[in-house]
Amino acid sequence: MNFALENSFEIGNKITKSSIVIMPIGAVEAHGPHLPLCTDTILAERLACRLAEKVAGFVLPAISYGQVWSLRDFPGSISISNETLIRLLVEIGTSLYKQGFRIWAMVNGHLGNQIALKEAARILYDQFPDFKIFYFFYPGMNKVVNEIRETETIHSVYFHACEIETSIMLYLAEEYVDMSRAICDIPNIDEEADVSPTPWKTFTQTAVLGDATKATKEKGKIIVETALNKMAYMLRRAQNEAI
Amino acid sequence: MNFALENSFEIGNKITKSSIVIMPIGAVEAHGPHLPLCTDTILAERLACRLAEKVAGFVLPAISYGQVWSLRDFPGSISISNETLIRLLVEIGTSLYKQGFRIWAMVNGHLGNQIALKEAARILYDQFPDFKIFYFFYPGMNKVVNEIRETETIHSVYFHACEIETSIMLYLAEEYVDMSRAICDIPNIDEEADVSPTPWKTFTQTAVLGDATKATKEKGKIIVETALNKMAYMLRRAQNEAI
Amino acid sequence: MNFALENSFEIGNKITKSSIVIMPIGAVEAHGPHLPLCTDTILAERLACRLAEKVAGFVLPAISYGQVWSLRDFPGSISISNETLIRLLVEIGTSLYKQGFRIWAMVNGHLGNQIALKEAARILYDQFPDFKIFYFFYPGMNKVVNEIRETETIHSVYFHACEIETSIMLYLAEEYVDMSRAICDIPNIDEEADVSPTPWKTFTQTAVLGDATKATKEKGKIIVETALNKMAYMLRRAQNEAI
Amino acid sequence: MNFALENSFEIGNKITKSSIVIMPIGAVEAHGPHLPLCTDTILAERLACRLAEKVAGFVLPAISYGQVWSLRDFPGSISISNETLIRLLVEIGTSLYKQGFRIWAMVNGHLGNQIALKEAARILYDQFPDFKIFYFFYPGMNKVVNEIRETETIHSVYFHACEIETSIMLYLAEEYVDMSRAICDIPNIDEEADVSPTPWKTFTQTAVLGDATKATKEKGKIIVETALNKMAYMLRRAQNEAI
Amino acid sequence: MNFALENSFEIGNKITKSSIVIMPIGAVEAHGPHLPLCTDTILAERLACRLAEKVAGFVLPAISYGQVWSLRDFPGSISISNETLIRLLVEIGTSLYKQGFRIWAMVNGHLGNQIALKEAARILYDQFPDFKIFYFFYPGMNKVVNEIRETETIHSVYFHACEIETSIMLYLAEEYVDMSRAICDIPNIDEEADVSPTPWKTFTQTAVLGDATKATKEKGKIIVETALNKMAYMLRRAQNEAI
Amino acid sequence: MNFALENSFEIGNKITKSSIVIMPIGAVEAHGPHLPLCTDTILAERLACRLAEKVAGFVLPAISYGQVWSLRDFPGSISISNETLIRLLVEIGTSLYKQGFRIWAMVNGHLGNQIALKEAARILYDQFPDFKIFYFFYPGMNKVVNEIRETETIHSVYFHACEIETSIMLYLAEEYVDMSRAICDIPNIDEEADVSPTPWKTFTQTAVLGDATKATKEKGKIIVETALNKMAYMLRRAQNEAI
Repeated sequence: MNFALENSFEIGNKITKSSIVIMPIGAVEAHGPHLPLCTDTILAERLACRLAEKVAGFVLPAISYGQVWSLRDFPGSISISNETLIRLLVEIGTSLYKQGFRIWAMVNGHLGNQIALKEAARILYDQFPDFKIFYFFYPGMNKVVNEIRETETIHSVYFHACEIETSIMLYLAEEYVDMSRAICDIPNIDEEADVSPTPWKTFTQTAVLGDATKATKEKGKIIVETALNKMAYMLRRAQNEAI
Repeated sequence: MNFALENSFEIGNKITKSSIVIMPIGAVEAHGPHLPLCTDTILAERLACRLAEKVAGFVLPAISYGQVWSLRDFPGSISISNETLIRLLVEIGTSLYKQGFRIWAMVNGHLGNQIALKEAARILYDQFPDFKIFYFFYPGMNKVVNEIRETETIHSVYFHACEIETSIMLYLAEEYVDMSRAICDIPNIDEEADVSPTPWKTFTQTAVLGDATKATKEKGKIIVETALNKMAYMLRRAQNEAI
Repeated sequence: MNFALENSFEIGNKITKSSIVIMPIGAVEAHGPHLPLCTDTILAERLACRLAEKVAGFVLPAISYGQVWSLRDFPGSISISNETLIRLLVEIGTSLYKQGFRIWAMVNGHLGNQIALKEAARILYDQFPDFKIFYFFYPGMNKVVNEIRETETIHSVYFHACEIETSIMLYLAEEYVDMSRAICDIPNIDEEADVSPTPWKTFTQTAVLGDATKATKEKGKIIVETALNKMAYMLRRAQNEAI
Repeated sequence: MNFALENSFEIGNKITKSSIVIMPIGAVEAHGPHLPLCTDTILAERLACRLAEKVAGFVLPAISYGQVWSLRDFPGSISISNETLIRLLVEIGTSLYKQGFRIWAMVNGHLGNQIALKEAARILYDQFPDFKIFYFFYPGMNKVVNEIRETETIHSVYFHACEIETSIMLYLAEEYVDMSRAICDIPNIDEEADVSPTPWKTFTQTAVLGDATKATKEKGKIIVETALNKMAYMLRRAQNEAI
Repeated sequence: MNFALENSFEIGNKITKSSIVIMPIGAVEAHGPHLPLCTDTILAERLACRLAEKVAGFVLPAISYGQVWSLRDFPGSISISNETLIRLLVEIGTSLYKQGFRIWAMVNGHLGNQIALKEAARILYDQFPDFKIFYFFYPGMNKVVNEIRETETIHSVYFHACEIETSIMLYLAEEYVDMSRAICDIPNIDEEADVSPTPWKTFTQTAVLGDATKATKEKGKIIVETALNKMAYMLRRAQNEAI
Repeated sequence: MNFALENSFEIGNKITKSSIVIMPIGAVEAHGPHLPLCTDTILAERLACRLAEKVAGFVLPAISYGQVWSLRDFPGSISISNETLIRLLVEIGTSLYKQGFRIWAMVNGHLGNQIALKEAARILYDQFPDFKIFYFFYPGMNKVVNEIRETETIHSVYFHACEIETSIMLYLAEEYVDMSRAICDIPNIDEEADVSPTPWKTFTQTAVLGDATKATKEKGKIIVETALNKMAYMLRRAQNEAI
């Protein structure tokens, strides 16, 4: 399952056109006082492993660095550009294709990466039309989140180190969460943030967008299992089409 | 010590001009029947952790993908270009500098990355003259290797999945070595390989360049401890100059 | 108001730090049988003029070519890459800044351009922190659309040549709409379209995403006036901050 | 004739290998007190429309921004780089080719664009040898200009907002010319301007290179009709060869 | 005078703000049966040396490879792109500036390079406004050529391996001319060649554009001495301004 | 033998798949008080000519500018980037391939170029698998140098303007060596120079790395003839394989 722990003598025979290869992508980014900088990478890795179990796929080593423009000024954040991330993904994807893979799932734990993932997938699609590529960011999440959240949503798209993300961490990686330090910090995000360059320091000092104290493992479970089922469903369908 | 497990509220105060930040860089690459594809990443990570202990430095998440031109045609290898690797490193380095770091050690486990690391370090040096950057690949190794090796060297620079690298793995990450599958395969590397593009499939079917069965933990220890002492010495010196 | 019709002898004195300059951006793209290929450009131009009236701003010549990846295979579509569009916008923005402008509103009529606009704005923000840039795509639209639409939404983000866009055209540029040819075509957009490269020909033959026959000028008015008010409000605020 | 006003359902059948598609390219650039900033775009658009009538071609939306290095420091000028303009043209050309066109005429109203147009045409020629591309800038003009001009030429290549260009505007777009403000300003252009980077502010404060008061509609007619005949002749020949 | 034959211990003191550094730029390109492939480089080198004598300047090693798009299909031609040539010149210019030079004359022997030289000079001008850069291609030539040529001109700009260029070679580098093989080949160059990509093989099989048999050393002398005087005049003026 | 002195009418027939084309590559770089700035270019040119005699190959014009990062701050040095040098070589190589060559030997006189040469050769290898490319830098030198040198080596890889390089110059180009000014300057190169960006001014004021006074023509002969034999052997073998 762990691709990188395979050896060269055996891996060749294991890769077929219906093989699924899964790559976690995260970030090093401020996540408040109760979550580590690598929260998004941990989430992506755990999701990728769970997904790999479901679909008998390979898991690749994570890309641990992401596009962190909005929070790059916060202590601990490390940011790379969309352009570089796109190049990196296109080259990895090209290698995977040459190795025989025809189904590649990028499991993303950091919203800021999503643009680069989509662009890289399109570039590869144009080069290799028979290469099925997914860029997953908690598919199906929106609907269930609306049902389970106790606090109001602050923004139509952003969620960060809050009730939601902390819940997911509690379910997937409880050992990295320090709930004793979880805080509630409800920023006022001006609508301008969606239409003009707006570093998050403009509206938050904590990088927590909501009430992290309301996080529970149960909420995390609902979100994660929903996303896993969606991802597994689409991957299995791609697998059936590949055969 | 693990940078990515720190949180944003505390990391800011911990970063000073004499702080050392260490990043492991490896590859996904064929390493024969007895070593995993991610051998170089494992080595870089273990070395980085040992080095961090010695100098009280931070360890960053590894870059797990490297430039694998020579072995890209072997099963399991994934290769990115020098150009992309350079961009990635320059951007990460720029973030580290902005976060306050002035000493950055890249600990590299894969020879093929070395050109990109050197170029990235030079580009950053031109932008930030007070940013001390190291690109380590087992410094001091050559001398001790000549003393401990039982088999003749096959090439003046290359060593791969052989007595040497397998020994290092036995010392640093024994749990990933399957010595029962170690082989001896001594290729004849024409001198042309140094002056003309030469994929390694030209001279080896195994990607093992020598006699892996001669590997021992003791040999690995000598190489690793030598390299660690060299690296720690240079980092401490940089630290003293930074204060 | 029309920047390009000004002459060089007078324009210099008219540009101050509180001047607002507005640029429409559209596309050449399939829009079904009842709307022209340049629908998005027409919309952007009309919106820009209306906005300019409200805030006494200058209107720049439109960029008539956009990123049309999803519909590029349809007859009449012309597509440029995100990368080129970003470069173009960054260079135009740099010229505007050098000419003395400090507030620039890009009024976008084509969703596919939005990623490039955002990236260009961020690049310029990093170069010129005192340059306030907006990338508008019908701000405030989502809420009112939900109230006025008669037909169910087909996708959480996409709308195209449908009840909504046709209504906007009826309000802003009725002379270019041929309602006698308007059709209802409700595609089934698989959720995979959001997580895997999916040219729209996969799910539509018409490029109409819904029931264009339900379009009315009144619906268009509500959307347009809402967006105009939002944009004018933000621009005036920026203007006040600039003085 | 207006490509962008066509709709997707019909345009496909109208494009054949002998179809001609014409794109105007201009600039936003200082043109003295009597001509608007967008003079070059207006000229290109009017020329393109006249040409389209002659050869029954399609007219594309104009590119309104050009390479304005020499006059970029004048009030109102907006400049993009050759590199970006080349990329933009290559991508538009690629789309036109994929849409079925085999004859593309760029009608340029701004001399500063000519280098980019030529380079883009060559790049596309190398990719699509059967794609006939023209980059027109008043072909045949030199000869007739020498016959009709009343004032001496100031430079072997440059003409700008002067007797010549103002005459063309009077013929093609009289409504944008304010002859009451036309001036005569005869700069002394050192020969160094041809062999060393020389912004025009070095030798003119008005951006008028000659005596605009001598402009007449009749002179403009001769130049324009000559150029139109040349262009139409070459396009028809290309059309005959394409059939 | 020969910069590259200087040594590092002495050159530093010799470079002042009024020093002139001259670089010849040529090409490897078909020049008919009587002239060598490196004709343009020889011409540039000889001109540069003569110019250096006149103004007491340094001569740099030649760039022997140029942009040869038009003749790249002829035997022996080697072509590089404008883009690469621009980068090369910008980097060399940057080094020259850092070494202390403020006046740089590129002496070009190949018309196809002129666009790259101009662009590189502009890029450097924007970075180093006090760096005076010239891109010379036989300045003042047009006028005298019209007076001395015996054969009609074939094209308003192009001259190649003909009466003119062969004359220049006879004057500057007679030893490389084989007049016994000189030919007369007068092609018909369609006006389309100026407005559409047109490799020269379209209109010539010899790459000789005219009557090379009419070449004389005397004609070459007039052209060369005219150009030398023009160049020397401008360089001396720049030198006076630099002091 | 001198490619550039051939003419276009004859060169075509002379190029066959077994033809060898040789290109010298040097640098403009500080070489102490006794050697000229263009030492590396002279060496490359002389070596290339000797090699061409041995294998009946063509010699191309030299590339006289190289990557001189380490010594760029010394008087007289001119440096270009790896990236630009790579582009230049790839484009020249592409032209050579199109001209019919299948064996290309780059003879390099400057160690700093070696990375770019290797990368360019790999890029071309991927495009033209049947194009045999060599990037020679004194092959076989290491062994004989150890036998003949009188002074201890200062660095495992670097040699510069020292006993070794001066000896080679004495053998190949004695007329450019001023032994009366040769010096002995033995720097202490810290091991950090191999793992951190280190301009050479850090450890030398002369750019001479050793005892140039110990140079002799005899030592140069041994090194040069060894390298020539190695190169000729490999080229002849490639030639045999090409037939």
